[in-house]
Amino acid sequence: MSTSPALTAPFGVLAQVADATQLGEGEAGVLRVLRALAGPDRRAAGEISRFARLPVPVASAVLGELRTLGVVDGLRPAGLTADGRALVATLGLRPLTYAVDPWSAPLSPDLVAVAGALDALVGQQPDVDVTLDQSFATGETKVRRVLWMIAAGALPTPSLLIVGDDDLLSVAVARVGAALGVPLAGEVVVIDISAAILATIASSAPPDAAIDLIEHDVRRPLPPAARGRSCVASTDPPYTTQGAALFLARALEGLRPGPGWDAFLHYGAKPPGPAIDLQGELTRLGLVVRELRPGVNHYLGAGVIGGRSDAYRLELTAQQSAETDWEATAYDGPLYTADLRARPRTYVCAGCGERFIVGPREPIATVGALQAHGCPTCGGTSFRPGSLAPQSIPGEKA
Amino acid sequence: MSTSPALTAPFGVLAQVADATQLGEGEAGVLRVLRALAGPDRRAAGEISRFARLPVPVASAVLGELRTLGVVDGLRPAGLTADGRALVATLGLRPLTYAVDPWSAPLSPDLVAVAGALDALVGQQPDVDVTLDQSFATGETKVRRVLWMIAAGALPTPSLLIVGDDDLLSVAVARVGAALGVPLAGEVVVIDISAAILATIASSAPPDAAIDLIEHDVRRPLPPAARGRSCVASTDPPYTTQGAALFLARALEGLRPGPGWDAFLHYGAKPPGPAIDLQGELTRLGLVVRELRPGVNHYLGAGVIGGRSDAYRLELTAQQSAETDWEATAYDGPLYTADLRARPRTYVCAGCGERFIVGPREPIATVGALQAHGCPTCGGTSFRPGSLAPQSIPGEKA
Repeated sequence: MSTSPALTAPFGVLAQVADATQLGEGEAGVLRVLRALAGPDRRAAGEISRFARLPVPVASAVLGELRTLGVVDGLRPAGLTADGRALVATLGLRPLTYAVDPWSAPLSPDLVAVAGALDALVGQQPDVDVTLDQSFATGETKVRRVLWMIAAGALPTPSLLIVGDDDLLSVAVARVGAALGVPLAGEVVVIDISAAILATIASSAPPDAAIDLIEHDVRRPLPPAARGRSCVASTDPPYTTQGAALFLARALEGLRPGPGWDAFLHYGAKPPGPAIDLQGELTRLGLVVRELRPGVNHYLGAGVIGGRSDAYRLELTAQQSAETDWEATAYDGPLYTADLRARPRTYVCAGCGERFIVGPREPIATVGALQAHGCPTCGGTSFRPGSLAPQSIPGEKA
Repeated sequence: MSTSPALTAPFGVLAQVADATQLGEGEAGVLRVLRALAGPDRRAAGEISRFARLPVPVASAVLGELRTLGVVDGLRPAGLTADGRALVATLGLRPLTYAVDPWSAPLSPDLVAVAGALDALVGQQPDVDVTLDQSFATGETKVRRVLWMIAAGALPTPSLLIVGDDDLLSVAVARVGAALGVPLAGEVVVIDISAAILATIASSAPPDAAIDLIEHDVRRPLPPAARGRSCVASTDPPYTTQGAALFLARALEGLRPGPGWDAFLHYGAKPPGPAIDLQGELTRLGLVVRELRPGVNHYLGAGVIGGRSDAYRLELTAQQSAETDWEATAYDGPLYTADLRARPRTYVCAGCGERFIVGPREPIATVGALQAHGCPTCGGTSFRPGSLAPQSIPGEKA
């Protein structure tokens, strides 16, 4: 077995090439070039340029440096050496492209079957917790998200991070990979506050899927084991600017340091004012919008966002603002849509007329919880919304 | 003929409804609701919501106010009154949708013919002036840009503004409208620095197209006749952050005041650093990215941008930063890519060895001009790039 540096420290090779070529896309750009070379065919610089989303002279400079390090051989078009092939295998890179539009092209029968199986899983999940802005994407949306990540060249990847996975994207990645016959991630790291969601993932992912499940409240910084580890991130955060910014900040903590890594964000469309607030947050986090597909995510009955949300492909730059350094601190502000609608409302039982105060910081958080429990007096499950109520003071009896 | 306010002051009606409903999308949002109602069929609030990109309760509030003003009748689903139909006709709104993906779906034979005719026009245009970052989009790209504006609900429009039209988008809008049998713009306002481009547009647009051609250098504020006039803007600016920001700032001058108007931007992909600089400029200009399709614009041999550029749909918000108020002042900084590559270069004639200094501020601005002219000594047209040369001082002989 070879003991070349390429094998013992794969990311060291990426960093070395990125430094030598002063690559604005950093290690991530070198990884994209290697992904373009992962197949059996040799590739011309122009093809590599398109696939890696780098200008031709930049892609050529990266190839030159990879030649110097013995990863790429001396022939044209370019191909990997034996050491290069070992490096690519270590990184979990595989030849895979998706050439048609992932959001509108018809799905193959295999992928339609995966979408159906993912829809069936939703029935086994715990009920949506609307206080966490949970809502379940359709199976087709989950499959198309994975195809989009492939089309963008973000998958296959050494390590995928998912911040909040009530959509079971981790399961979708494993099953789409199985359907395509190509493993899509060397590992998947899932961060979620809900033990029930993590249990669903554990029981429904294929047994050979390397999924690291971490129960964690993202109001707090990521645990050390998840930091600086992944090469691509995805999140479908709460639909508030603060929630999106916080989940994205945690995604950035989980990504390897440096520019060029992709972060996928799924987020409901907002009116112009809040929409530009989010854009300002993205800039402050050092994230640039590279692709934005409005309304392509479909949800099963999502009240907050009208059943649709937008899909963003963001790229990390080197320009993260110091003022948004969440790493050091826990977040204690409003986060979920319900937090911003903090004022509780009275609900009246249609059976006996008894009144209940419902609100995110009340003992009864949602009308759904009230309906599930039933009226304590008459057992009725139909309630009429009444007037807004004053917020109860923590520590006092309501 | 009716003398209702709806007919005498169409935009006054839009402003009145936007004010009464405190609509974040302003007049533009009301216009989108009216566009959804422009066809012969009645529309449910849900359909109008999707088409107008407004949440259902917001679309319903706008409909309610339009009922109060006698524009929409009292029935459900909603339909226009006779006054409402007259208002919609005055605004030049027509029923038209484009339901498939405008960037990837196959074109109909009629539209393929339009694309071919637009390609043929390029042969009649003056040569690309690379010092102005000119490059010609393919006919297919021009057609797809128009379809995208239809799919987004931005066309048909009362008034379309094009800031810099070396791509002849104005001609494409007229011809696609003719092919679809639906006029797409009550008027088109074209701002361009090049008399030759304006002459090409005048000679190749259909005789009944209402195109207002304005020869103008956008370094200076728009002439009063073009200000605050249009409802949608499009620009394919120079590929520098300053150039894009300046052309967009002029587009904003040409749009009606208030939020919600769409601005379409076509701009080459940049490395992470300059890319996030552009995003910051967009935020400062009060423009939020609503859709971004990477690499969908194809050009005929565009060196600067590798033959591709990204397509942005931006929406104007109410949050324009005072620090980017270009309206009062002319711009005197670098603008075109060549300005940022200001240092001239020596070229050597391959035939006789004579040396020439080529640069954007030199008597010979580009190597293309040198090749077209030929070597003054031997008539050769092949030149080798040599060393960078010192910039000649204006007023001195080189």
